[in-house]
Amino acid sequence: MLIVQKFGGTSVGDLERIQNVANRISKTLNEGNDVVAVVSAMSGETNKLVGYAEHFSKTPMRAEVDMLLSSGERVTASLLSIALNEMGHNALSMSGRAAGIITDDVHTKARIENIDPQYIHAEVKRGRVVVVAGFQGVSESGKITTLGRGGSDLSAVALAGALGAELCEIYTDVDGIYTTDPRIEPHAKKLNEISYDEMLELASLGAKVLQNRSVEMAKKLNVNLVTRSSFSDAEGTLITKEENIMEKPLVSGIALDRNQARISMSGVIDRPGIASDIFSALSEAEVNIDMIIQTSSKEGNTSIDFTVPSNELIDAKDVVKKFIDNDEIKEVSYDEGICKVSIVGVGMKSHTGVAAKAFKTMAVESININMISTSEIKVSMVIDEKYAELAVRSLHAIYELEK
Amino acid sequence: MLIVQKFGGTSVGDLERIQNVANRISKTLNEGNDVVAVVSAMSGETNKLVGYAEHFSKTPMRAEVDMLLSSGERVTASLLSIALNEMGHNALSMSGRAAGIITDDVHTKARIENIDPQYIHAEVKRGRVVVVAGFQGVSESGKITTLGRGGSDLSAVALAGALGAELCEIYTDVDGIYTTDPRIEPHAKKLNEISYDEMLELASLGAKVLQNRSVEMAKKLNVNLVTRSSFSDAEGTLITKEENIMEKPLVSGIALDRNQARISMSGVIDRPGIASDIFSALSEAEVNIDMIIQTSSKEGNTSIDFTVPSNELIDAKDVVKKFIDNDEIKEVSYDEGICKVSIVGVGMKSHTGVAAKAFKTMAVESININMISTSEIKVSMVIDEKYAELAVRSLHAIYELEK
Repeated sequence: MLIVQKFGGTSVGDLERIQNVANRISKTLNEGNDVVAVVSAMSGETNKLVGYAEHFSKTPMRAEVDMLLSSGERVTASLLSIALNEMGHNALSMSGRAAGIITDDVHTKARIENIDPQYIHAEVKRGRVVVVAGFQGVSESGKITTLGRGGSDLSAVALAGALGAELCEIYTDVDGIYTTDPRIEPHAKKLNEISYDEMLELASLGAKVLQNRSVEMAKKLNVNLVTRSSFSDAEGTLITKEENIMEKPLVSGIALDRNQARISMSGVIDRPGIASDIFSALSEAEVNIDMIIQTSSKEGNTSIDFTVPSNELIDAKDVVKKFIDNDEIKEVSYDEGICKVSIVGVGMKSHTGVAAKAFKTMAVESININMISTSEIKVSMVIDEKYAELAVRSLHAIYELEK
Repeated sequence: MLIVQKFGGTSVGDLERIQNVANRISKTLNEGNDVVAVVSAMSGETNKLVGYAEHFSKTPMRAEVDMLLSSGERVTASLLSIALNEMGHNALSMSGRAAGIITDDVHTKARIENIDPQYIHAEVKRGRVVVVAGFQGVSESGKITTLGRGGSDLSAVALAGALGAELCEIYTDVDGIYTTDPRIEPHAKKLNEISYDEMLELASLGAKVLQNRSVEMAKKLNVNLVTRSSFSDAEGTLITKEENIMEKPLVSGIALDRNQARISMSGVIDRPGIASDIFSALSEAEVNIDMIIQTSSKEGNTSIDFTVPSNELIDAKDVVKKFIDNDEIKEVSYDEGICKVSIVGVGMKSHTGVAAKAFKTMAVESININMISTSEIKVSMVIDEKYAELAVRSLHAIYELEK
């Protein structure tokens, strides 16, 4: 079968590791598969080049940054190809351009618009291993572009989709997706499989491993994604569509997001459209709102609470200040000492009582729940950050995720 | 006017030097010129990458080596472009491909076949400074190629020709072409101008500065070439066609080539075509013959002496051995302790007595001349290597080159 294997920066961090990657690809080939490899720059290279650019300018032209950064993946691709050839395989490297990866022209964070798989297809048909420089493409006007953070994963997923690959393996330094962060709960278990939607909801667990836009693209292109370690032979976690999941546990994992801040506005003026005005203004300032609670007292005193990512709090404050200056909001308070704990599982769809169990657990541990939001496959609770670990461990235990 | 400025590895060896290069280009622009810059990889980068490749294979695939090495120049090009933009100029970088440099498909030593200057022309017309990654092009099939040693100079000269640039400046760490090697003769003087043909004959003086194939291309494309230092404001040496040379000195310079070995064959069999057979065999073994002397004694005993580059002596010995084994040559001796001293000057064409003066000087210094060869603008003498410096200094003095 045709497998796309993607190796990140740490997996190709030095020459020895590149040789290890070659050995792994060689093994996959010798098992009778075709392989298209996608590689990142050697770890540290991209940061080094960014540092060079910033030596000359605080705001280097993005098209030039793309020209600069795209060289890192090319180096890895050609070295890996040389290693594979030396091992007797028939390998060749391809830049993003040669691989037919067409993007829009938003330099440094381009989006893949189209992939023309004919060049890779032709080489694979001839029995060759193609090593593609990840993270990069070309715009319609022929300029080199890069795909931003996690771009090599995107290259791999998009190629797997365009090539109709049976599998897209993402190799990193961790061996899969866990039921929760093992640093918090040592009994966390590696998941064998998980659906795209669960993975998206568990983002905070997988963010280090896999960015949401890669998962979203895999879902859209129906690519079977596996995250696994390049430093062990342990099987990873398969991320696939729900129909493919054999066992559907009630709860698949517990996610923790510490990167949350709460904004509590009281004495919000009672006029139609005020909430809409506030949230439109926040949206224009590119502040991402997560949860919202609106309450009105009998005296007509409206309160609106909402949460934002911590690093967007400053921008949010600026927006809110304008409404205060206009006397449309009386008081506001901010709380950065919060976190969001989420229970995720496709099994929730068909089972009731999952949320109730979570709330009861929090009550047993005397953890106050500030805000709640739910979706078909998720229950999220905002709590004081000091209870973060306790909450995660209690929930992990109550849903028996260690089993 | 349009000036192509080429900056070698040491000129862009670190970030500070790249900034210096940006300052120099900026100055040229501010004087009202258009500039197309051509850059090498930062010094040490190419060797580092070659070392990486050799870690994996003693004979890495040449196409992959090209993919690998071509990244170095791209990095420099984008950094220089970022620096220029920061200084308020409208700069952009181009890969060899984007610059329209089409080569044959002999990877790692490709030849430029054609340059399509329309992309650069269009940008220059829009008032932009184009920074081209030197040393690289693309083959007709779209593969990245590199031009081998001195390749960035070739890129610059070829671009200057295709763009009809008024001047092609090659910046290195020396400030021009000298009448002879200043390490041998401290009174050596920098030449203001020299003809292409003289430069080609003086190769050994200029080899470190400029490779012959760049000079040959400049001659063919009628490009006015200037070699100068990127570390000083001193004017360099203009290399141009003979008609443009203002003052035509009798002798322009004294070249010394230590890389010579002499092969003396005696008792060469007396049959028609024997000399042709020997030299054809040497040619097939890719041995470059320089001078040849053939003498026949009355007794029909033929001797043939010739010189080859020292590093080709081993191959030459192998060839000669076959003729000895066939009893077609009786005896052979080798001498690596020789060197070739040459007097070069377009003025010789119209003046007699230049050669005689040289021979007389050698006689005065009691230096025995082993072999002599002459061309329209050159007299070369093979002498014992121990007299090399003495010969150079004496000739430099007799032709008054220090003035």
